[in-house]
Amino acid sequence: MKFSSKIEKCGLSPMRKFHPFAVAAEAKGRKIYHLNIGQPDIETPAAFFDAVKGFTQPVLEYAPSPGIPSFLEAVRGYYAKLGIKLAPGDLLAATGGSEALEMVLECILDDGDEILIPEPFYPNYNTFTRVTGGLIHPIPTTPEEGYRYADRSRIEAEINEHTRAIMVTNPGNPTGVVLSHDEMRLIVDIAKEHNLFVIGDEVYREFVYGGEGLATMLEFEDAAENVIVIDSVSKRFSACGARVGVLISRNKDLMSHAMKYCQGRLCSATLDQVGAASLYTVGPDYFASVRDEYKKRRDTCMAGLAKIPGVVCECPKGAFYIMAKLPVDNTDTFQQWLLEEFEDKGDTVMFAPGEGFYATPGKGKDEVRLAYVLKQADLERAMELLALGIQAYNAR
Amino acid sequence: MKFSSKIEKCGLSPMRKFHPFAVAAEAKGRKIYHLNIGQPDIETPAAFFDAVKGFTQPVLEYAPSPGIPSFLEAVRGYYAKLGIKLAPGDLLAATGGSEALEMVLECILDDGDEILIPEPFYPNYNTFTRVTGGLIHPIPTTPEEGYRYADRSRIEAEINEHTRAIMVTNPGNPTGVVLSHDEMRLIVDIAKEHNLFVIGDEVYREFVYGGEGLATMLEFEDAAENVIVIDSVSKRFSACGARVGVLISRNKDLMSHAMKYCQGRLCSATLDQVGAASLYTVGPDYFASVRDEYKKRRDTCMAGLAKIPGVVCECPKGAFYIMAKLPVDNTDTFQQWLLEEFEDKGDTVMFAPGEGFYATPGKGKDEVRLAYVLKQADLERAMELLALGIQAYNAR
Repeated sequence: MKFSSKIEKCGLSPMRKFHPFAVAAEAKGRKIYHLNIGQPDIETPAAFFDAVKGFTQPVLEYAPSPGIPSFLEAVRGYYAKLGIKLAPGDLLAATGGSEALEMVLECILDDGDEILIPEPFYPNYNTFTRVTGGLIHPIPTTPEEGYRYADRSRIEAEINEHTRAIMVTNPGNPTGVVLSHDEMRLIVDIAKEHNLFVIGDEVYREFVYGGEGLATMLEFEDAAENVIVIDSVSKRFSACGARVGVLISRNKDLMSHAMKYCQGRLCSATLDQVGAASLYTVGPDYFASVRDEYKKRRDTCMAGLAKIPGVVCECPKGAFYIMAKLPVDNTDTFQQWLLEEFEDKGDTVMFAPGEGFYATPGKGKDEVRLAYVLKQADLERAMELLALGIQAYNAR
Repeated sequence: MKFSSKIEKCGLSPMRKFHPFAVAAEAKGRKIYHLNIGQPDIETPAAFFDAVKGFTQPVLEYAPSPGIPSFLEAVRGYYAKLGIKLAPGDLLAATGGSEALEMVLECILDDGDEILIPEPFYPNYNTFTRVTGGLIHPIPTTPEEGYRYADRSRIEAEINEHTRAIMVTNPGNPTGVVLSHDEMRLIVDIAKEHNLFVIGDEVYREFVYGGEGLATMLEFEDAAENVIVIDSVSKRFSACGARVGVLISRNKDLMSHAMKYCQGRLCSATLDQVGAASLYTVGPDYFASVRDEYKKRRDTCMAGLAKIPGVVCECPKGAFYIMAKLPVDNTDTFQQWLLEEFEDKGDTVMFAPGEGFYATPGKGKDEVRLAYVLKQADLERAMELLALGIQAYNAR
């Protein structure tokens, strides 16, 4: 049987590639410290579960296709506090930020169309882009420059007649890069000048550690036709399993097209939207304490990396990932070796090898993404294992 | 800004087209009897809500991409009772039958590829097909023949070099057609001979009213490479808002490709899968009583239609819809008139006009789909309103 050329071009998640080796290592009794996945360990606010438990309708009906009003209103209220005015029709509830992005790409990409994304980038963007027949055109960055990309000549050099959008994850996964207001303005200006959409994946918005204000591409009201924002409760409220996201844009044509997709799949899960609406009642103390916790974790990881000779890594300003260049020949081989050969008192460590975060073949082979989603003591031990592992691997 | 040619070809749901007119009618004080949407009024079994309320993990984590084990095991157990053996890798949890179908079509359709579907068909199939660049090639049926399509020459006449799959909704939405075992065998044989997938959308499986056994395309183990089944808890357990479905196939290549999609969107909602797993503990009494209720409703509608001169409608054997040809010039115009001009003691009625269920231009203009998802007394009144409406409309 023949399969579509588009799905043939998709791959399995690079973050899950080493799962069988991890299972085998655990079967041998190894304890693995997981820095490879972005599943936070922070408790989901009780407001979510309370709202779900308080649902008393006898029939679990379809939600409205654009989302349940209480959830959409909660999100509008959240943006109002950021100084962003949104009309009710500017938002559509989605099944996670994932579906919100999928909808956008289905709406704007034809076969051969390109979307500019700074690399390294979140690998699942590949799947959403490839199923549309489009492709990701990377904006190159380097670990030595702290993966910064907000430079006019660097971005404009990659624009061609196939370019349809510039997409940025801000704060960045996997790099932790946080754009300044001027940098955001620059990207929006470039998009306007070249008649491109600018897609801001802003699901990590609250995770900034340098005292920055909370930023969004929606600030630029003069670019109402260009700006599309992807948002989600997953990371913000440690509610990844709720699969509740939102697509936001003031471009009415885009929203009309996205509505067709919304009606096609009928709705996002009703109960999860009810729970998600309540999450927005959580106060600023919640975000402050979560931010403080992650900042400490980041600093623990950076302190650990600083002790390893040959690591190239600028301190990331946001999200909960560190992208780093390691002094090893190949981080794929190194990860496999860590799971198959290495142990220190029965322990080993996992990260996400860098290659899967790049579109350019051959890039990222000596880089890794570390997700600092473990408790302090576990992170300290994980960084110790990484240091010992690099030493032993290079001394083979 | 330019949008994709694929989304430009999609439309809004024809079932929602008259929503603004309904709102206006209600504003004038009209009571509307809704036969236009397939939202059952049957209570969701308490097992769902109990399981959700019993969820005590402090972090609402991502579920595994292929689905949570308890849900997948529950579905396997359900099929085992139907005499169908499935390996664990033959199932993937999806966000409703909608996402399961979306995954399948992404996996098998390239631009210009065709999928054979008997028309009239569920209109949202259009959206899922068009976003892949593929298109629906209809197998024609007529109200006079009870919308039957399981005929070798009728199906083979539509197969060409672009055909990739034959898809059937069984029991049928909107027609209520239920395939016999021999008819299913025939369709599977045709698919095998022409090297096509056969996709069975079987979400209405339990809703059969002629004492038939519960059927599935998965019975045909000799067609393991061809058969794909779409299933869902939405209609089966009146849990539409849970958005929990499942993709089932023994074709390992298909399942590997679908897994890429699953990993890309991370997972289906965790809590809903927990609830859905518990739904499968509901016993046969539940299905028997629901079936009995719907059968009575169908009979009420059929009795109402029998009193209207000029209606063409064979009694449907399954699902909870009746497709009928009405003695009016245009059911779109008739629906709008019912909302704008008609009333009987302040009441009026809505159905889904037939045109949106057809791919062939011009077909279905004098047909309607009636969803019998109301209580007996309301259905009786709705059928009375339909009869009065037709009479008054034709007497204008």
